Amino acid sequence: MANAKKSNTRRTFIQRSAIAGAAFLTTPSELLWGATNSNQKNEIDMTKNIKTKGYAAKDASGKLSPWEFERRPVGDDDILIDIKYASICHSDIHQEKGHWGEQVYPQVPGHEIVGVVAAVGKNVTKFKVGDRAGVGCMVDSCMECSSCKAGEEHFCDNGATKFTYGYPTDAEPTGITQGGYSDKLVVRDHFAVHIPNNITFEEAAPLLCAGITTYSPLMRAQFRVGDKVGVAGIGGLGHLAVKIAVAKGAEVYAFTTSEDKVADIKSWGVKEVIVVDEEFKNMQAYGKTLDYMISTIPYQFNVTPYVMCLKPGGTFTFVGMPEKSEITINNLMLAFARVNFNASLIGGIPETQEVVNYCADNGIRPSIEIINAEEINTAWDKVVNKEARYRYVIDAATF
Amino acid sequence: MANAKKSNTRRTFIQRSAIAGAAFLTTPSELLWGATNSNQKNEIDMTKNIKTKGYAAKDASGKLSPWEFERRPVGDDDILIDIKYASICHSDIHQEKGHWGEQVYPQVPGHEIVGVVAAVGKNVTKFKVGDRAGVGCMVDSCMECSSCKAGEEHFCDNGATKFTYGYPTDAEPTGITQGGYSDKLVVRDHFAVHIPNNITFEEAAPLLCAGITTYSPLMRAQFRVGDKVGVAGIGGLGHLAVKIAVAKGAEVYAFTTSEDKVADIKSWGVKEVIVVDEEFKNMQAYGKTLDYMISTIPYQFNVTPYVMCLKPGGTFTFVGMPEKSEITINNLMLAFARVNFNASLIGGIPETQEVVNYCADNGIRPSIEIINAEEINTAWDKVVNKEARYRYVIDAATF
Ligand SMILES: [Zn+2]
Ligand SMILES: [Zn+2]
Ligand SMILES: [Zn+2]
Ligand SMILES: [Zn+2]
Repeated sequence: MANAKKSNTRRTFIQRSAIAGAAFLTTPSELLWGATNSNQKNEIDMTKNIKTKGYAAKDASGKLSPWEFERRPVGDDDILIDIKYASICHSDIHQEKGHWGEQVYPQVPGHEIVGVVAAVGKNVTKFKVGDRAGVGCMVDSCMECSSCKAGEEHFCDNGATKFTYGYPTDAEPTGITQGGYSDKLVVRDHFAVHIPNNITFEEAAPLLCAGITTYSPLMRAQFRVGDKVGVAGIGGLGHLAVKIAVAKGAEVYAFTTSEDKVADIKSWGVKEVIVVDEEFKNMQAYGKTLDYMISTIPYQFNVTPYVMCLKPGGTFTFVGMPEKSEITINNLMLAFARVNFNASLIGGIPETQEVVNYCADNGIRPSIEIINAEEINTAWDKVVNKEARYRYVIDAATF
Repeated sequence: MANAKKSNTRRTFIQRSAIAGAAFLTTPSELLWGATNSNQKNEIDMTKNIKTKGYAAKDASGKLSPWEFERRPVGDDDILIDIKYASICHSDIHQEKGHWGEQVYPQVPGHEIVGVVAAVGKNVTKFKVGDRAGVGCMVDSCMECSSCKAGEEHFCDNGATKFTYGYPTDAEPTGITQGGYSDKLVVRDHFAVHIPNNITFEEAAPLLCAGITTYSPLMRAQFRVGDKVGVAGIGGLGHLAVKIAVAKGAEVYAFTTSEDKVADIKSWGVKEVIVVDEEFKNMQAYGKTLDYMISTIPYQFNVTPYVMCLKPGGTFTFVGMPEKSEITINNLMLAFARVNFNASLIGGIPETQEVVNYCADNGIRPSIEIINAEEINTAWDKVVNKEARYRYVIDAATF
C-alpha cells in the first residue's frame, strides 16, 4: 500500500507540473506541497489500534530487535503516516542505553521520520491522504500556552511537550510514545510538517532532527554574510550545520577529530577544516578568530580550547547532549574568553517546516547511507565509533 | 610616617577647600583627587628594597601569621603606597588554601588596598606624594597590546597581566607578588587608581575588587531602569552588586541562604529578598521573571534553579570563582531556559576608577567591619561560614 501511495503522489505531481500556470492552480502551496487526491478515503478503521512493525530496544544494552506493537487509533486531530524512512540520530543511542535516565522498554527509537499520509482524522485540515509528511522530535504539546502559540511547542509552558519516543502517555497502548524505527506512526497533525516534492524522502529525514537542531541556533545567532562560524563535531548534526552555515553565507571553520573526513568537509564549501589533535595544538592558531561557534559533539569534552577560538563577545552554542546532559565549564576560562555560552534544543514546528523548505529549495542535502532494518545495530556501533558518513537512513520497507 | 602623611594630606585638602574657586585651581581633578604638595619629596631611598610588614600564609592550611619581607625598590614608573586599609575577599582564602592551584609560600594575600602615596618614580605623572591611591587585583601588564591599550589590562593579549599576590615575578625579592595585608606596596603607577576625597579609605577598599567585579558585568548587561536584576549570594561581592544595581535603577531581587541577612538587604532598597531553601522551593515563584542575574556565590552549587529564574533570552553572569574554578551545567536545562551563561573577571583600570568614582559620588558604601591584623584568621573563618557583614577591612596600622 505504501508503494502505491508513493507512486500515486509522484504521478499526480508530474501531471500538475505539466499544467503549471493553469487558472485553477490557485495556491502556491498546492504546487509546493504536492497535490493530494481529495477523493482518496481513509482505508483504515479509525476506531482500532494501528498494528505496527518496528525495531525496539528491549533493555539498556542498546541492542535493537524486531518488535510488533500497536499504536493508538487515529484520533480526530491525528494523521496516520506510512513511514518510508527513518534516520539514526545519536540521541537514539544515548536514550536507549539509558545515558539520560532510566527508560521503559520495549522502546522504539527514531525521531527523523518521513512518509506518506495514509489516513486523517475528521478535524484535520493540514494534511490529506497521500501527502508527504515528516515528524521530528515531538508529537504533541498543550497548544494553548503562549510558547505553543508562538510556535515554540518544545518549550510548552505547561510542560506538555511530548517527545517522539519513550515519553510516558496513557494515549498509547504501550504506555509510552514509540518512535520512527517502524512502519507506521499516528501523530497529531500539527506536529507533522510537509515534505516538499523537490527533496527525496530519504534526504528529508535527517532534517527533522539534525536539520532543525542546527538550523535553529544558527538562525538565532544572526551572523552576517562573511562572519566566521565554527562547527565542532562533524557528524550527523555537524555536517548539516556546516552545509546550512555555508548556504547562509558564513565563512565556516569545521573542527573534527577525524582526519578522513577532511576531503568530504572541504567539498561542502568550508573555509578551513581543523583536525583536532589530543593536545589541541592545531587549534591554537584560531584563538579569538570566530564570531560564533556551534558544537554538536554528543559527549563530555574539554570545552576550553573551542571556546578560546571565539572572539571576545562571541557566542558558543552547545547542541550535542552528552551523558547525564552535563558539561563542566572552567569559569576562569569563560571569564577570560568573554564568551557567551548557551545550549539549544531542536526547534518549534514552524521553524522545522522552515528548515525543510530551506534545504529543499537551496540544494542542501544531508550525506546519507540507506540501510535495512537488520543493519541498525551495526550502524549504531558505527555512529558511536564516528564511522557514520554522515547519516544512516533506514528503509522502512525492511521492518 | 604613614600617619604624618595622612594628616598632611588632610591639612592640605582643607587649605585648598578654603580657597576653592581661586583662579589657580584650574582642574576639577585637582579638587576631586585631593591636593598634593608638589614640593614634597620622596623620603625614601629609591635604590633599596622596601621593608614591609604584613600577614602571610606559610602553607595551604590557610592560617596567616605576621611576616616581615621586602618589596622591590620604587622604580621609575612605580609608586610606593603607605597602606591604610586592606579588605578581605573570599578569593584570598581560596587562593591561600590552594583551591585554585598550588601556591608559593610565604604569601601575603589582599587585593583591596588603599593608602597614601609615599614616593613616586621619576617618570610618574599620575600620582604625587600625598595622593590617596587604591590598588585592586592586578599590578602590571604589557601596556602595549590592544587589550591593554583599550583599558582591559586584565585581558592582556600577551598574557602579561600580573595579579596582585602569588604571581611569579623576578622583579620581587620574594619571587612572587605580595598582596595588601601589609603596610607598604610598590606598584606601577598605572595600576593604582585615585581615591576621591568624598569617600573614606576604609569604605573605598572593598570597591577595588568586590566593587569592580560586580560593577563591570552589571554595566556590560546594559539593563534598563526598571529591569528585574537578580543577585545570587549576598556576601562581600553580592552586597555591592545589590547596592550598585539599585543605584543604577534596577528592580533588584536578592537571593540569599541567610535568613538573618534579610533586614539588611531590604534596607539597601531591593524589591524582594528570596531566602533560598535547600529544595529551592522559595525560588519557584520567580521562574522566568528576571532580565538578568549575577551570581557571586564562591563555591560549586546547583545553578539550575537560579538560571530558571531568568526570562528566555536573559543572561546569567557568574563572578564567584569556586574551587578548581569549575562549574557543572546541565545542558538540557540551559537549552530549556534559553539563557546565556557567561563569567566575568574583575575589570580594567579605567573601569576600576569609574566604579570608585561612581560609588563615591552616589553614596554607595560597602557595609564594613574594621578589624586588627590579629583578627584576620577569625575573620576568614567567618567569611567561609557566611558570617561576614559584609566586608572585613583590616587596619594596616596594626600590622
Ligand atoms: Zn536527534
Ligand atoms: Zn504549551
Ligand atoms: Zn577579590
Ligand atoms: Zn597587554
